[in-house]
Amino acid sequence: MSREQSEKWLPLAKDYAIFGCYAQTELGHGSNIRRLETTATYIHETDEFDIHSPTLTSIKWWPGGLATSTHAIVFARLIIDGKDYGVHSFVVQLRGENHKPLPGIDIGDIGPKFGFNNIDNGFLRFTHVRIPRDQMCMKFSKVSRDGRYLTSSNAKVVYGTLIIGRIYVVERTSFSLASALCIAIRYSLVRKQGNDTKHDPNESIVLDYQFLQYRLFNGLSVVYTFLFVGKWLRNLYKINEKKIREGDVSIMADIHSISSGLKALCADLAMGVLNDIILACGGHGYSRFSGIPSIVDNYARSPIVEGDSTILQLQTGRYLIKVFENAKNGRPTPATLSYLKDYLRILSERSKVTTWEELTDPNEQIKALTHYHTRLLAKLISNLEETSKTHLQGYEGAKSDYMIDIINVSRAYCYTIIITSANEGLESIKLTYSNIYPTLRILINLFFSNFIIKYSGEFLLDNYFNSNQIKIFELGIKNCLEKIRPNAIGLIDAWEFSDNTLNSALGRYDGNVYEALYNWAKLEPLNLAQERGEYVGYNEVLKDIYNREYLKGINKSKL
Amino acid sequence: MSREQSEKWLPLAKDYAIFGCYAQTELGHGSNIRRLETTATYIHETDEFDIHSPTLTSIKWWPGGLATSTHAIVFARLIIDGKDYGVHSFVVQLRGENHKPLPGIDIGDIGPKFGFNNIDNGFLRFTHVRIPRDQMCMKFSKVSRDGRYLTSSNAKVVYGTLIIGRIYVVERTSFSLASALCIAIRYSLVRKQGNDTKHDPNESIVLDYQFLQYRLFNGLSVVYTFLFVGKWLRNLYKINEKKIREGDVSIMADIHSISSGLKALCADLAMGVLNDIILACGGHGYSRFSGIPSIVDNYARSPIVEGDSTILQLQTGRYLIKVFENAKNGRPTPATLSYLKDYLRILSERSKVTTWEELTDPNEQIKALTHYHTRLLAKLISNLEETSKTHLQGYEGAKSDYMIDIINVSRAYCYTIIITSANEGLESIKLTYSNIYPTLRILINLFFSNFIIKYSGEFLLDNYFNSNQIKIFELGIKNCLEKIRPNAIGLIDAWEFSDNTLNSALGRYDGNVYEALYNWAKLEPLNLAQERGEYVGYNEVLKDIYNREYLKGINKSKL
Repeated sequence: MSREQSEKWLPLAKDYAIFGCYAQTELGHGSNIRRLETTATYIHETDEFDIHSPTLTSIKWWPGGLATSTHAIVFARLIIDGKDYGVHSFVVQLRGENHKPLPGIDIGDIGPKFGFNNIDNGFLRFTHVRIPRDQMCMKFSKVSRDGRYLTSSNAKVVYGTLIIGRIYVVERTSFSLASALCIAIRYSLVRKQGNDTKHDPNESIVLDYQFLQYRLFNGLSVVYTFLFVGKWLRNLYKINEKKIREGDVSIMADIHSISSGLKALCADLAMGVLNDIILACGGHGYSRFSGIPSIVDNYARSPIVEGDSTILQLQTGRYLIKVFENAKNGRPTPATLSYLKDYLRILSERSKVTTWEELTDPNEQIKALTHYHTRLLAKLISNLEETSKTHLQGYEGAKSDYMIDIINVSRAYCYTIIITSANEGLESIKLTYSNIYPTLRILINLFFSNFIIKYSGEFLLDNYFNSNQIKIFELGIKNCLEKIRPNAIGLIDAWEFSDNTLNSALGRYDGNVYEALYNWAKLEPLNLAQERGEYVGYNEVLKDIYNREYLKGINKSKL
Repeated sequence: MSREQSEKWLPLAKDYAIFGCYAQTELGHGSNIRRLETTATYIHETDEFDIHSPTLTSIKWWPGGLATSTHAIVFARLIIDGKDYGVHSFVVQLRGENHKPLPGIDIGDIGPKFGFNNIDNGFLRFTHVRIPRDQMCMKFSKVSRDGRYLTSSNAKVVYGTLIIGRIYVVERTSFSLASALCIAIRYSLVRKQGNDTKHDPNESIVLDYQFLQYRLFNGLSVVYTFLFVGKWLRNLYKINEKKIREGDVSIMADIHSISSGLKALCADLAMGVLNDIILACGGHGYSRFSGIPSIVDNYARSPIVEGDSTILQLQTGRYLIKVFENAKNGRPTPATLSYLKDYLRILSERSKVTTWEELTDPNEQIKALTHYHTRLLAKLISNLEETSKTHLQGYEGAKSDYMIDIINVSRAYCYTIIITSANEGLESIKLTYSNIYPTLRILINLFFSNFIIKYSGEFLLDNYFNSNQIKIFELGIKNCLEKIRPNAIGLIDAWEFSDNTLNSALGRYDGNVYEALYNWAKLEPLNLAQERGEYVGYNEVLKDIYNREYLKGINKSKL
């Protein structure tokens, strides 16, 4: 918005005089924003815009908080004298006195979802709704009284909104995973199962099982690795913000690409960790009393909100293709990727170290990842160049034959960012936090080693690592688990989640897990009704089916 | 039960005179059945058993259908004259006239879960409930009037109940995944997104995107591969049943091990596919109107019902260790694993073929998997033998240091079973179904190739495959996708799911996806209330927050 517009609308919003939402996505249009269909047609006579949903697929769909909002920032195509100026944003009032929708406004809730049902994602259909001209958001583009369209070159800065949303997903991931791990690790210290023998009748604390450690400590490694990544990303964002204020948009494309790919990879990894956490809790993890299903519900939308993971990874991959082509041809590259100029040297490198300590040295970690992502990128470029010679749509067309590879390149690059920023972040606090440094070092090493083992084929393929080095990583993972075990409880208690926050029968600080499960079940409405002598379902249905003489026999029947 | 007992109870159950459930799991005891705590103490004086829950952790917890059952088969420790004879099963009546719980019975629902909330999983606590002696299930073990305990050597046949449950999970997986894929593939033919250019204003049908095909056709390959695996497993079960009737329990351990490991792997793979399917549908996949969240809800318990995946995989892995030790030392091995006698030859094999056709030849597929799982197994045994020399608890103790490896061995073996049974099943119908054979062949080849790429490190590690062969697999996957594309709709329509079964706005046969989403949303209670002029939440909460003069301004405000 312009300064005048902000000065008008922001106090109203801050004062709760109006409730707003961000209405972009439409029923038929998500990631391809250029194809949004809602129109905002300038009406010269009245100095207004006519906001309209011309088709079924143009109905706004999914905006969070829309169903109960009084106002929305609506993304619509600006039309002046029949000419389409593309998508712009407009402030539209949706509801008037007593919350009644205004004329021409068809608004509602889009119904139940896979999780996050506390948010009223809504729909919104316009039938020729008029708004005054000054409700177009006019920071970068303007329409004058006589219908002239004026725009500034800084318009791409609006993507900043998308970037911060993606950074938030990355930052929130550590928090979500840490709360689920807090529940799982505490419960795994209370829960005992198996390993009892004739000689030793006691069952083992399940957290002492190697495989459970493998699941949960991998989760811990993700939590702490992403803590460093999130801080690094937030810092990059601040630098970008400062530059923008100075009129410098030079790192905008870079941060857009990094935040897109990282958000996608981060959500994907986190969903896997959450799945592991549920599995690690046995049956009780599936009870809502465990608190874990709610965390999953709240997190589950992460692969799709703020951009579809696949689309984001393709964007990042395509950006890398462009940067690599620039590097190869001696054109400028962004600072974060300037090493690509050295790609021939990077491709020729092989790991020469032979011990766990050397293999997990921060510089060696970064070197391995840089080699990996550069190799995939160089291979992709060479394939694209080869295929484009015979492809009808040339280089651009060839890309559609390499979507799998483009996504793999994005993933490899984002792992490189993760390993680089986590290691640099950790090394930067080595002296200030020398007491916790060793434990955090093990977590980062574990994250790295799990990555290497998962993608070992990629490193064996060109002998960057040999089979002996891979075996050292396998062994190293087990050693990490043993070393993390004594610190597991500390690493989650450090987050200081209260029992209220966790809302979990399994993750209670006092460890009275089974009492809590039983007491909470007793409070279920069905069970309370039974205590009052009301048997839900019995009078309505069951009675007519099985009310036979037989049931009077009360455990006394003889054959 | 004995024949007399069956003749008494089964007609009552079949006639709906009683409703029963299987009450095994307790609050503190799941997989380790030997440690169940509920007691059934024989009372000489009255010829009864006293059923009792001595501790909080002994409360029955999770049995499906328990909360509304009138009777249960209760698993409890048989105690006679102070001696513990281990876990046996007993028929216990829970509710009497008008559905009222009987004295000593504390029964209820365990509360909401992560999915499957249509099932009333319940809890059950006994306070000295008496049942007549003849309500102990006495097919294999008996207690006489004078308190003598008699048992038969066939008692392990009771595990048959667990096996059939696991086979059912495997069989049901294809059905669940096929219904979700039906929704996703139909929607992906309606949905258009991106790829529009200045020259071509039309967006692409999303199913034409390589990456979407990669996600969804991998799902199809799992569906059809498991169709053959399920049939093979069911057949093995029938053979076992016949043998048991003839008093032959020789393949019992084998089928127990196979069904355990397969169920675990199958559930794990299917959860991944379901996640891919949701992602493939963009935002709308997360709407409950898509029908996919319900399929996930119903399937989500699969990794834990009928046995925790980790425990099952450990059982299968431990069984394989035993069989391998037998094979190595010239002792008898089960037919399904007799090739392990040849393990030295298998370990020395390397793939010598060089084309896609040869690499995906059924025999080559089976050879690759057999080599893979034998190598992991041999490596594990060698590690166990080495470690046990210095381990305080010897060979058994050493196993706890190799849990990750034992699970990997189970997984590798189950992949071998999958690839073997799917290829053999498909080849057996090659002539009868020559028209669909080529398409199914591509699906099985895709399943195999995706597996090889996912675990390429395992095959490169000992050069079973070289890097050129891996590249052929990568290329082959893309070729499979292209070939499946024209048959995608046929492969899901073949399942003949009705619109009612799918209950999905996205998977409608008529393709009117957006109309359905909009019409279904209009029927939401919140939206219907609004049509009546009732604004849910407004009078209760919002009114007091934002009922300001401002909202009367109805889109007419000027700066």
